[in-house]
This record gives sequence, C-alpha cells and structure tokens, in this order.
Amino acid sequence: MDTRTGLPVVGMVGGGQLARMTHQAAISLGQSLRVLSVSPDDGAALVAADVRIGTHTDLAALRDFAKGCEALTFDHEHVPTGHIEALEAEGVKVFPGSKALVFAQDKGMMRERLGALGAPVPRWARVTTAADIERFANGLWPVVAKATRGGYDGKGVWMLSSPDEAAELVATGTRLIVEERVTLRRELAALVARSPFGQVAAYPVVETVQRDGICVEVLAPAPGLPEPLAVRAQELAIDLAHALGVVGLLAVELFETDTGIVVNELAMRPHNSGHWTIEGARTSQFEQHLRAVLDYPMGATTLTAPAVAMANVLGGPPGGISIDERLHHLFAEDPGVRVHLYGKQIRPGRKIGHVTVLGDDMASVRARAVRAAGWLRKGE
Amino acid sequence: MDTRTGLPVVGMVGGGQLARMTHQAAISLGQSLRVLSVSPDDGAALVAADVRIGTHTDLAALRDFAKGCEALTFDHEHVPTGHIEALEAEGVKVFPGSKALVFAQDKGMMRERLGALGAPVPRWARVTTAADIERFANGLWPVVAKATRGGYDGKGVWMLSSPDEAAELVATGTRLIVEERVTLRRELAALVARSPFGQVAAYPVVETVQRDGICVEVLAPAPGLPEPLAVRAQELAIDLAHALGVVGLLAVELFETDTGIVVNELAMRPHNSGHWTIEGARTSQFEQHLRAVLDYPMGATTLTAPAVAMANVLGGPPGGISIDERLHHLFAEDPGVRVHLYGKQIRPGRKIGHVTVLGDDMASVRARAVRAAGWLRKGE
Repeated sequence: MDTRTGLPVVGMVGGGQLARMTHQAAISLGQSLRVLSVSPDDGAALVAADVRIGTHTDLAALRDFAKGCEALTFDHEHVPTGHIEALEAEGVKVFPGSKALVFAQDKGMMRERLGALGAPVPRWARVTTAADIERFANGLWPVVAKATRGGYDGKGVWMLSSPDEAAELVATGTRLIVEERVTLRRELAALVARSPFGQVAAYPVVETVQRDGICVEVLAPAPGLPEPLAVRAQELAIDLAHALGVVGLLAVELFETDTGIVVNELAMRPHNSGHWTIEGARTSQFEQHLRAVLDYPMGATTLTAPAVAMANVLGGPPGGISIDERLHHLFAEDPGVRVHLYGKQIRPGRKIGHVTVLGDDMASVRARAVRAAGWLRKGE
Repeated sequence: MDTRTGLPVVGMVGGGQLARMTHQAAISLGQSLRVLSVSPDDGAALVAADVRIGTHTDLAALRDFAKGCEALTFDHEHVPTGHIEALEAEGVKVFPGSKALVFAQDKGMMRERLGALGAPVPRWARVTTAADIERFANGLWPVVAKATRGGYDGKGVWMLSSPDEAAELVATGTRLIVEERVTLRRELAALVARSPFGQVAAYPVVETVQRDGICVEVLAPAPGLPEPLAVRAQELAIDLAHALGVVGLLAVELFETDTGIVVNELAMRPHNSGHWTIEGARTSQFEQHLRAVLDYPMGATTLTAPAVAMANVLGGPPGGISIDERLHHLFAEDPGVRVHLYGKQIRPGRKIGHVTVLGDDMASVRARAVRAAGWLRKGE
C-alpha cells in the first residue's frame, strides 16, 4: 500500500506501451503504477513516477521490485516461468499466476491444455525433426510452424511450403509446434477479465485485421457477427479464464471459419485487440486489468458508441515531416480522432501508437481510423 | 522538445489534481507533463515522471523549470504576475500570457475589463473602507465581498450582512471588491479553448451546483437551458477568449437570472466545471488545454452521451472504512461509474476526487453520481 494515499500499489514487469497505458488508467484509481523497465527510455518509463530499471530475467531484480506491491503483473509474457514460481513460493501475489500464465507463454502446453478442455483448436503437433514436420504435412503444404516460446507480432511464426523449408527452420534449433493452415473467413478476439474472487466480465467480441502477422485494425463490435457465434466466443473465453485460473485479462485470439471458431492464441494481459476500450467501452481494459488483479469488482464493459475502430500506427520509412508536424496536420484534418502515441523511437514496422474513432457507422469510422494511422505513419 | 520522442514538453506550474489529470492526457499525445510541485506528495507529483520540487513564488525556480519547455502553463492562478512578465521578457512562451491571466488573477481588473467590454456583470465596486461598503450597500444588505486575489473554493468570498461585518472584514487588510447579491436561478459554466493561432472550440454549456461556495455537481448539458441562452453563453465565452487574448482554456462561471446571464468568475486553466469532459466529451478539457498551448488544432467537443453528471468527492469526517474499501463497495454497487481519485490526504471538505456517470437520462445519471460521491466521502 502507498502510505501517502492509502491505496494499493501494482507492479508491472515490462515498460512498454501496455504498462504506459496501464499507468494512465491507474492514475484515475488514485494509484501510480510501479514499472520494471529495461531502459529509462521505454514508453512507460517516460511517464510513470515509480520506475525501477532492471530486466525481467533477473530474479533478484524481480524480487526487489515486488517488495511492497499488492500485486505483480506483466506487460509481456517473457518472464521465465521458474522465476514466477519462485516469487509465488515467497508469498508474492502474482497475477496471472504461473500455473495460468504458462499457457500464454508456451504454445505447446497451451495447445495440449485447450485440447484436453475440449476447446476448438487447429490440428497440431509438437515436432523436433524435419521428418516430424513432413509426416504432419503429409504432402499438404503449407503448414504453420510456431516457436513454442517468445514469439510476438508475427515473430516466431513461419509458413512452411516444403520439406526443405522445414529442414532449414529445424536447423535453427528453435523448439517448435506445427499446425494446419486454417482456412479462415477472418480473425476475431474475445477479451475477458477475471478476478481472484472469480468474477468475470466479457467485452463485446471484436474483429482483428492482421497484415504480415501484425494486428493493424480492430473493429468493435465485430461487424455482422451472428449473435450465437458472438455468445459462443464470449462463453469460450469465460470458460477458459475459469478453467485456466486466469486472474487479470485474458485475450482469446480466434479464427472464424465456415464451421465456427477455432482458438489461435491466448494472451493474459492488456492486449492490442482491446486498445479500443479506452474510449469505446465504459471501462478500459487497462483499468479492468488493475481491478482484476486487485480483486476489485469488475467495471461495465458496454460499448460507448455503436461502432468503434482502432488502427495501429506502425513506424514508417525514415524521413518526411516530424511526428509532431504529422500530429498537427491530423488534428486539423479530423478533430474527432483519438490519438495514442507511445513515446517510442520510430523504426519501420514498429507499433508506435494507435488511433481510435467512434461513431454510428462502422465503414465510416474504419475509414477515418485507417486514414489517420496511415497519415501518422507516413506523413503524406 | 523531448529528444527521446521528438514531441514537445509542456511545463505546468502547480502539482494538484489539474496537473495530475493533464499529465494523464499528455501521455496519449506521446508527451510527459513536466510538473513544478511544492511537495513530492502532491497529486501530480505522485504520478508524473518529470517532477521538479519548487514554489511558484520563486522566480529562480520558475526560470529553471521553464528551460526546455515548449510552453509553460498553470494548475492555479497564484503565480505572481510580475514573475510571469519576467519570464515572458526572457522569451519563455507562457500560456495564458500575463496580459490575459491577470484578469483571472485579479477580480478588480476582471470586473473593470468585463465592464469595458460590455459583458454582463453584477453591480460592483472597489472598496477600501467600511464606509465604502456601506455606501455601496446603501441599506440593502447582504452584499458580497471578494478578495481581489487568491480566493478559491469559497475561500476569499464573504456574505456581509451589516456595517459591523464590513468593518470586521476591512480590518483584516484584505484588498476587496464588493458586488450586489445576484438573485439567481442557478449557476452555469461556459468552457472554451483558444490557440495562439486564434482557433476556438466551445464545449456545451453546463449547470454547476455549489454548496458552501464549493462546486459539488456539474450537469452536462445544462438541463432545460433554452438554446438561445446556451448559444449566448458560448458566444460570450468565445468573445471573451478573443478579447482577453486567452491561450488555453477559459472557463466562464455564470449566473442564470430571470433576465439572462451574468458573469461571475473567470478561470484560465482546466476547471472543475470541465472534469466531465474526460469521458463525456470527445476531447477532454485536459487534452484540449495541451493542444491549445501547443497551437495544435482543437479537438472535437461533442458530447459522448445525452446526459453526463459529475460529482466531486469531498473529504468526509475522519474514521470509517478505508478509501480502498469504499472503492470496492462502490464498484460492486455501480459497475458503470467512472472514478477519479487525486491521491490526496483526506481532510474534511477537501476535494479528493470526482465521479462521472453517463447515460440517456439526466435524473438517473445525476442520482448515481451523487450517490457514488457520497459513498466515497463517508463510506456509508
């Protein structure tokens, strides 16, 4: 507890944009997020008052960081499971706990557990040799290979089109699973939050649009999604949150196919598919995550407008007018767009911010969001 | 400019809740507000990364603080006008500038200027002796006396009912003006923002409800306000912003009388009558103030719901359950209420936070906001 305010202290491991936006939400709750950041120039470290510099793979740093925190939580999945178990054994309240988080950290364990729970998943297999992959493909290429740990934003995922490509990947020594390439209509995401008490709140199901493995747009609610399918996706996410014992947010990335929904990935933290909630839902995912890990009752997840579109701002090619000038022009062009910049150095393809547009008509808000994000990316 | 982000740095003098919420807004714009705070325990100092400790009456501290800021602005009106003039003479961009701000700092100068501009004001006079006050009252007591400088939240305002009370106040040596007591239907506020370029954005006119001189509720839009009167109030605020050369926010506190509107006070900063804009308007007053002082184009001021009610949370009597427990109960009772706590030590009557409720029906959202604020105040 912060003795100056009488309010709890949450520590977040990792200083990226998720921690940055969680700090923003913490301020409203009378709190100040404590951030463990690798660099003082990380997005959250630039804006939070209580920043400790250290790496998430250093158990001593984690132990020190956790002292005085009511709850420890994460901006990413990269803390070694063993470190989290060690902290838990010492009495630190870690949410999500290691027993849940491992299913977001290890894709092999996630697939096994989802299968055991009867959740819809693609056909998959653990593989260690190129022969294993060839056997799985059984002549039907391409297949999707995934690193079991450490992937994000398209990294750690490969589309393999031949035995040669399989052999090349195996030679890198990466621990892998392979999956069938699912024929999908589109991608969806179901976001829920669960508290230690067991209360769960579900957000409306959204459509996520990916390009080169990176989420570029999110549409809330998912346009034209039949109500029974939306309910099924929400129920699936709620069931998984309970079954896995998740505390905090659970984002279930889904494929919509001709026959229903299939689980693609799990994340247990604020998620890119939920950035729209800052303005688009009565309670943002960032506040909801804090409420969940502190065992506060969950906030309302209702939409604040009929149509909400979020577009990520990716770093563009070098050169052109400055980001500040781009912002000026964008604000002149569209006074209603909501901008979120993460304070990051611009590198091509890197997520440096996002924009959100709310309104009555999805086609219109989507077009405005895409236009605004493109403008911030390229300044033209 | 912050060389790490390529984005501007705004410095705010004063570390209270207005700076706290401005920092929250700055984060979305890729910025981190620089705060000059008297104490490290002030609301903004608890949450901002770039905090300098110093007093606003210390010119050397202000000078040092301003170095590297694209714009210097204020959380309160208490910086000596001479200090601001000195900074301006040295090339610091101060918004609002001294020539405008003085009309929010000095009630005598404000009344004179408004009169010269033809704005509707109560009958008033500068007074130095008890005889001056008696002459102004002319047998019609009570009259309203105001300290020309330094008042806030009912402090610096006195209702004088007799020559004896007038003599007693004059004896304190406070510089005073007196005003007729206006017979009012209710109080309103018109909030606008103006950029150096001269662009002005006006928010919907709100009703403010005061108790013991402190704002306790704000209703947006002002219920039942005839459209011509709303337009007149907005136009008055816009005209004043231009005429006074305000850069940043201008809040015009108004009395609604049987014959129209009368200007009560001016403030040139984020204002309690605009806290509802965080969720209730497309652009919050805090982001709007930053956009204005940086000469960004103004954001949309449209309402996000038909009815928005804000209630201040005042510190209650000592004892009872902790603020953290109160928050738990409130969230269980009303999952849709938006809470903003300022991280302040609780003292009876002190503004320690506010709550906002949005919906379709003003009576209902107002009742929920009042109930939530009362609960946080007393925990019962």
